Order: sequence, then C-alpha cells, then structure tokens
Amino acid sequence: MTDLAGRFRRLWDEIAPVGRDAGSGGYLRYALTEPEVWLREWFREQADRRGMPVHSDGNGNLFAWWGDPAAGEAVLTGSHFDSVPHGGAYDGPLGIVSAFLAVDELRAAGVTPVRPVVVGAFVEEEGARFGVPCLGSRLLTGEIAVERAAGLRDAAGVSFADALGDRPAGADPALLGRFAAFVELHVEQGRALVEQDAPVAVASAIWPHGRWRFDFHGEGNHAGTTRMVDRRDPMLTYAFTVLAANKEARLRDAHATVARVAVEPNATNAIPSRVTGWLDARAAEPETLHGLVEAVRAKAAERARRDGTELALTEESATPLVAFDGGLAKRLATLLDAPVLPTGAGHDAGVLAAHLPTAMLFVRNPTGVSHSPAESATDADCAAGVTALARVLEELACR
Amino acid sequence: MTDLAGRFRRLWDEIAPVGRDAGSGGYLRYALTEPEVWLREWFREQADRRGMPVHSDGNGNLFAWWGDPAAGEAVLTGSHFDSVPHGGAYDGPLGIVSAFLAVDELRAAGVTPVRPVVVGAFVEEEGARFGVPCLGSRLLTGEIAVERAAGLRDAAGVSFADALGDRPAGADPALLGRFAAFVELHVEQGRALVEQDAPVAVASAIWPHGRWRFDFHGEGNHAGTTRMVDRRDPMLTYAFTVLAANKEARLRDAHATVARVAVEPNATNAIPSRVTGWLDARAAEPETLHGLVEAVRAKAAERARRDGTELALTEESATPLVAFDGGLAKRLATLLDAPVLPTGAGHDAGVLAAHLPTAMLFVRNPTGVSHSPAESATDADCAAGVTALARVLEELACR
Repeated sequence: MTDLAGRFRRLWDEIAPVGRDAGSGGYLRYALTEPEVWLREWFREQADRRGMPVHSDGNGNLFAWWGDPAAGEAVLTGSHFDSVPHGGAYDGPLGIVSAFLAVDELRAAGVTPVRPVVVGAFVEEEGARFGVPCLGSRLLTGEIAVERAAGLRDAAGVSFADALGDRPAGADPALLGRFAAFVELHVEQGRALVEQDAPVAVASAIWPHGRWRFDFHGEGNHAGTTRMVDRRDPMLTYAFTVLAANKEARLRDAHATVARVAVEPNATNAIPSRVTGWLDARAAEPETLHGLVEAVRAKAAERARRDGTELALTEESATPLVAFDGGLAKRLATLLDAPVLPTGAGHDAGVLAAHLPTAMLFVRNPTGVSHSPAESATDADCAAGVTALARVLEELACR
Repeated sequence: MTDLAGRFRRLWDEIAPVGRDAGSGGYLRYALTEPEVWLREWFREQADRRGMPVHSDGNGNLFAWWGDPAAGEAVLTGSHFDSVPHGGAYDGPLGIVSAFLAVDELRAAGVTPVRPVVVGAFVEEEGARFGVPCLGSRLLTGEIAVERAAGLRDAAGVSFADALGDRPAGADPALLGRFAAFVELHVEQGRALVEQDAPVAVASAIWPHGRWRFDFHGEGNHAGTTRMVDRRDPMLTYAFTVLAANKEARLRDAHATVARVAVEPNATNAIPSRVTGWLDARAAEPETLHGLVEAVRAKAAERARRDGTELALTEESATPLVAFDGGLAKRLATLLDAPVLPTGAGHDAGVLAAHLPTAMLFVRNPTGVSHSPAESATDADCAAGVTALARVLEELACR
C-alpha cells in the first residue's frame, strides 16, 4: 500500500461506519437526517483542521475555501454525502474525501493556490428524501423555485424548509460568479474502466434522462371471490408495463428501469385499486429517450384497455443531455492520460455545467455496481483518483 | 323503508364513522388498534343493553350470552370487526350487527331461547395486522400454536401478545364443547345473488385456498448506468410471475391474485436487490389449486433463470376445502327458501367448521365488490339478512 492509499484509508475509515445499516451493509444517509448531519459536522472539522473557512449558501450546500478568496475566480471541487436507500459507500463521499486529500497533496508538495480551491458538499443529490435529485445545486443555480423546494416533503411529511431549519436562500449568481470551474470526482457506476484497464477517466457527457410516474387505476375487490373476468386489476397493467419498458430499452440500446412501486392497499387478499410505478429512462440521444418513453406509454395504454384499467402518466423530472465543457475535458484527459467516457447517471456537475465550465473524474469500480452495498473501489484506485484530482487542481488553480 | 330496515340503519350508523379513512372512504380497522378497540367496547355496550353477559376466551374473541348458559348447548353466531386496509364497511361487522338485531327480533316476537344464543366477535379475521387470517378462531380451536400466535408481529414490530396485553390462552375445548352450532352471516363477496335475484343465500363450501410468498433475489445496481445485459433485475421476474399467475388461473377457472409486493430498496434509480410478491390462489378442488400454484412456480423459476435472479417460494398459509355441514345447510336453505352457494373467501366459519356444525348466510352485494370502499348492501337486504338469521336462531335454539 502506498502512503497515499494509507492516508486515504485512514480518512475513509473515519466516516465508513456512519449511517451504515447492519443488516444490508448499505448506507441510509438521507439528506439532513442524523448520519448526514454528522458527516456535515465532519466536513467542518476537516476544513478547520486545514484552516479552510466554511461558508454555507443558505440552501444546505457547504463550501470550504483554501487560499485568498479575493485572489481571482476559484476552482470548485467536491460532491455530496447523501445516499440512496441502502446505497454504497463511495457514491458522493469519495468526491469530498478525495478533495480534502488532494489539498493535502498539493500542500505537502509545497504548491500554493494562485486562485482559491473550494471543496463543496451539496445537499440532497440523490433525491432519496425529498424526491428531487440535485436539489442543492438546483437551488444554488436557480433551476428550482425556492417555494417548490421549500415545500417538498419527505415520507414522514417533513418539508425541506423544516429539515433545513429555514426557507432556502435560492439562486446565488454572485457566488456562482466566483467559480471559474467545477470538477467533481465520482466512483464509476459501470464497468468501462475495468474493461479499459484504467483507474481514472474524464467524463464527456451525461445522457438525457428522467423519471415518469405511471398511475394505474383499477377497481379494488376481493381476491378470493372476484371472478377473473370481472376484475379490473391494475397490477396486471403494471406488470406488463415493467416488461415492456425492459424490452423497449433493449431494442434501442437505452436504459429503462421500473424499480419503485406503490400499491393501494397492498394487501394479499385485496385486488388493488391503484398501482403506481416509476420509470427511470435514459439514452444517449434525446430522440431515443423520447421514443423509448412514448413506446412504453403506448404499450401501457393498450394493456390498460385490455385490463379495464386507466393510466395517468406524469413526467416527474427530465434532464436534457449534458455535454461537459469539451475543451476542459480534453485538457484534463491529456493532462491525466485518461480515457473519456459518457455516463447515464445524473450529478450536481450536470446541473452546474449549464452555469460554469464543469468536468468530472471517474474512479474505477471493480464490479461496476452502484446504488448498492456492493459498490466498491480499491484504496489504490482511490489514491490514483486523489493524485489525478490534485494534478487537475494544480493545473487549474495553482499556475 | 320497513321498521326493521330503519332499525338496522340506526344501529349501523353508530359504527359507520369508526376507522373510516376520509381519503379513500375505506376502513382501517386493524385488530386491537384504536378503531377496533372502540368497536369492541361498543360490542360490550350492546350486550349490556340487552342484558347479555360478555365472556372473553383469552384469545381476543368476545362472546355475549343470551339465555341461561346452563340450558344446553348454545348456538353461536357473529363475525369480526377488523378490516383489510381501506376495506369495506360490511365485511365482518354486518354479521355482528345482524346478530344483535336478530336477538331483538326474537325478543320482540316473544320468543325465548331453549338453548343459549351467543353473539361472538372474533379477533384478526383478515390477517391484515399480524399476517395470519382467522387468528382468533385458529387460537380458540388450537389450529395455531400459542407460541407462534403470541410472537406474530405487525409492521411496527408489535407482537400479538403485546397488542392483546397478555399471552393468548389458546385452545379451549371446554368452551367449544358448549356450542351446538355456529352460523356466520356475511356480506356476499361476489355477484351470484344479484344474478339469482335473491337477498340471502346459504353457503355450501369454501374453496381451498392459500398464500404463497415469492422472494425474487437479484443484484442491486444503478438504474442509470447499468447496461441492460449486465442486470439481474428481480422486478422483471416478479412482473412476469404476476402475468403468469393471471393466465394460469384463467386456464383453470380458478382465482389467482398478486396484490401485495415489497421491493428492496424501492428507489426510482436503484435496480432492486429483492422483490417479494404474495400469491393468493383459490380453486374449487384441491388438485386444481395445487396444479395452479405449481404452474406459476415453474414459470417463475424458468423466468428467474433468464433474468439471472433466484426464486425462493414459501407457503405462508394453506386452507383445505371446507365443506359446511351438508345437513345443516340443506335444513337452513329449506327453512329460508334460499339458494346454496360456494365461496372463494376464507372465514372464521371455515375454521370452526372442523370442530362443530357450521353454516353461513350471505347477504346480497349489488356490485359484488368486497375488500374495498365500494363494498355495499342495501338496508332492505340487510333487514332480510336479520330476518333470516332470526329464523335460523329460532329454529336452532328456541324449539
């Protein structure tokens, strides 16, 4: 183990137990709940140890500054602490831990920032608690209205404003204007780097993607006594739609997933009155994505007619294609001699890319598994990620 | 409106608001929760008003006695108060309300019981809180072990023993031995009486039926970044199984329903690691039921191989064919000039039928809908049910 891999492991072990579910081994680090609040305190301590003043934007996002804030436009790096339910350890926290270690590397090498380096921690990136992914970066950039964000509620009915302890501050163009670039380091959520035998990549683009809610309404009835011909069972329409989404995505080389379902009343002996499924769909091009969702909708509607059920389709979120700054990606790929990859996953970097030059670095994930306890990265690859990020920060902020 | 229909409506209105959800209009009357406890108190008050001493069997079942307990074997009637989630008003409570009104009818006519008439209220008939239907009657008859029943837990982790406030007393052969017969009046859960244009029927049999849990294990992963070919998505196997169950039931003129599902982690952007579906299956003959479940299992297992998932199948409950006492059913059908029908629904009467002569009366349900807020019966038909039950009690206990 290199010294840097050892330093990574020691810092990593400080947060590894926080919010881990003993049963699944996955993490329950929902935004502004106790484990995530603990991690936010840890962030402040790490910044303090390094003499980096911490500033909050009033939206739940934290920023730790290294270097004179008046010394020109800053380079922002960092990621998020929150997880999906029973998610992996690396998705989010790796970008923050790596950022602090990259600052340490530069300092140890005697490098000083010409322009400030800022380590950021964004709130509610996964949308697992309040339903809107990248909520913190959307607020900062004004891509979601303050009123709507404030009123988002978690499963227990707590609003985002109540969880935050205040009405969110919303868009802050002055703060955004102080950043020359954003570089987010993230664990890879696929196996491309395994196949290419490289520890680190630079991102080219984020596929257009979105979430669509399919509400299937039928007629609640007794499972034991209702003749099959008399039923209007929305579970059948749901099941058909799940299989149709899979098939249509395969036909288009796109991604479609129905991973979340809600059933009313969800009782063994009661035919449901309503089944709701959420479709997550992604594709390389917007037209492909549109065609995919339309094909699933058409098949669901046709099946609903056969089942005597009704379909209501709601687009809950849609994120257009994000092409990261081509010049910056090329510059970093050359600097790091790293491959350039697209991704199907949304990130705060995807939101910020519309407002400032933005890049992402991916760290190899041996299994390719993400959003699951099986998500992983070796300490050696994480050290390679820190080294790469330090070189990028040196290139952008220290010359 | 006849006087009796009016008396039915007045008594019915006393309990109609209890546990009703303002949103769905359905009932949330889970066993030993606040609404059901209110109804149990109401039961005691109704018994008090009529001078009927109430006895508990230590299992959560209540019995109100009319007539000298020493005057020979009693005739038991009654039903249950608990509901499925967002269930209808009639399933259960109709049998208890009708029983008290039938006693009133006999008294008003100057009839006195030669043998006692007992109005019973059984606990946890639906199994909606603790997972085992007919829990109260199974305990009383010894068909479930006290240890197992005591340890059953609701979704919040509360055990049945804790909800009951004591370890259940279990089998009571002495009490059962005091009953000559059980007659349960129940709203019909189908449209046979609509088609036959009759307000009341006598039951012939309960179809054999059961609940089977299908656990599909796959690999949790990121919905956005995992290639379709790399997935092991248990939601696909679940969806295929839902459709297979429907098809196999139709082929056999049987009933199969998958109305309840649990997904781990049930997040929009995370391919599930596990999906669990509960199959409710029923058929006129045991061989048909066995063939149905085996066909669904085989199809699910074959699909699991294609999806790279694993299936674990658990039989959670299985109730054999219940043929009600043929002589009693014929006697009551002749007495009432009523049709004789089988049913696909389980009841406490089905459990007690193995221990004493048992019969059921069904009251017409205009829509045939049950286990849903749309479940209904007209006041006139409910009055006809009371009249029929009074005649049955007079025949069995007052001659």
